[in-house]
Amino acid sequence: MAKNFKLVIEYDGTRYYGWQRQKEKRTVQGEIIKVIHTITREKVDLTGSGRTDAGVHAYGQVANFISNTKHTIESLHKGFNCLLPEDIVIKSLEEVDASFHAQYNAKKKTYHYRILNTQLPIAIKRQYAWHIRKKLDLGPMQEAAGHLIGTHDFKSFENVGSPRKHTTRCITKAFFIEEAPDSYLFEIEGNGFLKYMVRNIIGTLVDVGTGKKSEKEFKKIMESLDRKNAGQTAPPHGLFLKNVEY
Amino acid sequence: MAKNFKLVIEYDGTRYYGWQRQKEKRTVQGEIIKVIHTITREKVDLTGSGRTDAGVHAYGQVANFISNTKHTIESLHKGFNCLLPEDIVIKSLEEVDASFHAQYNAKKKTYHYRILNTQLPIAIKRQYAWHIRKKLDLGPMQEAAGHLIGTHDFKSFENVGSPRKHTTRCITKAFFIEEAPDSYLFEIEGNGFLKYMVRNIIGTLVDVGTGKKSEKEFKKIMESLDRKNAGQTAPPHGLFLKNVEY
Repeated sequence: MAKNFKLVIEYDGTRYYGWQRQKEKRTVQGEIIKVIHTITREKVDLTGSGRTDAGVHAYGQVANFISNTKHTIESLHKGFNCLLPEDIVIKSLEEVDASFHAQYNAKKKTYHYRILNTQLPIAIKRQYAWHIRKKLDLGPMQEAAGHLIGTHDFKSFENVGSPRKHTTRCITKAFFIEEAPDSYLFEIEGNGFLKYMVRNIIGTLVDVGTGKKSEKEFKKIMESLDRKNAGQTAPPHGLFLKNVEY
Repeated sequence: MAKNFKLVIEYDGTRYYGWQRQKEKRTVQGEIIKVIHTITREKVDLTGSGRTDAGVHAYGQVANFISNTKHTIESLHKGFNCLLPEDIVIKSLEEVDASFHAQYNAKKKTYHYRILNTQLPIAIKRQYAWHIRKKLDLGPMQEAAGHLIGTHDFKSFENVGSPRKHTTRCITKAFFIEEAPDSYLFEIEGNGFLKYMVRNIIGTLVDVGTGKKSEKEFKKIMESLDRKNAGQTAPPHGLFLKNVEY
């Protein structure tokens, strides 16, 4: 009988062209499908909770696949982690109800974005934070982030290119914490995210932090529903898909 | 007039064959010498406080070079960091007395070694810690580390291959801290270190942590002055040259 397997996956996105399988490009989904095939001899569909862009990391991406394998959960889990490259780790593997769908059943996602705000760049762990030299004022950034909370049309922060029915999303958390002096972690939680949405929000919040835009202008940009008014897309390497709730 | 410049350097050793310049191999010293040449047009000798092995990182390697350059300190510093690959950062550059020698004047060095003691490996930041699956008992490791303190002959923890007059060194600090659950940071400070000494000490301390060797056996291994009695050489990617004191 076919079983439905749910995976929680950590990956370092540095060496990947994102989650989504692409021909002749190294992707996280592609690597995992290969390994599942090696062990089960089946060509499965691996459904992720959503895509992550090239260079974006994940602590808790979720995916599922249907398989007729006779291997035990434990041997599948060990086998996957043995065969996967060291920048992808299956943190958990479990059998779930046939109805579970990693994309459609996702209720909430949390993303983290890390900013390092120092004069000098760093060499160690440079691949996990956006280094910004210009001094940021966290107060207005924090206030601006508050406007994100609630159900809004986030068209201003969307890059076109992915299929979606509408551009309204509900954001339940959006705030910065100062993890260490000059190191800021942005946490955002919502029922879904548009293409490049977190990175476009960060790019615009950084404009608020440098004084290029005010906290009130941030609100107006949101309301304008026009991507052209928002700031640059922040680089992918500061972004982490933290977890997905079902 | 020739000036003597002192550099403090951070690097991520992942992509390098260590500090020491080698023909046709990518080394940290080699990269910095190239960049100094590009900016000053001089072929300088760059003296490091000591070598670091392939794959070892540094937060505060120190080096010096003599140059007749007319560039200001500020423009040299900016220029070096602009031209260097992003995994090498010159944290500070200053003019020092002609007598300063990064190797001979070094009084103390501190190294850090990070161990991650979890069932599952990690994908993110995997290049900065040694992942050990087998449960470690920190108590005996901490006690064994205590035996390192003082002036001792550390021949048991030396791999041959580097020139040195004798194998006696003075260790002033050697202890573990639990940075996070199952994440241990070992700090060791001394007036000098033999080839692979920290990594051989860690390999042996891990044998104590798994129960393969006792804390008393650790002491005997030290006293035996025989490398064959010590444990394996721990992998380089957990090791960081933290700072050098003068």
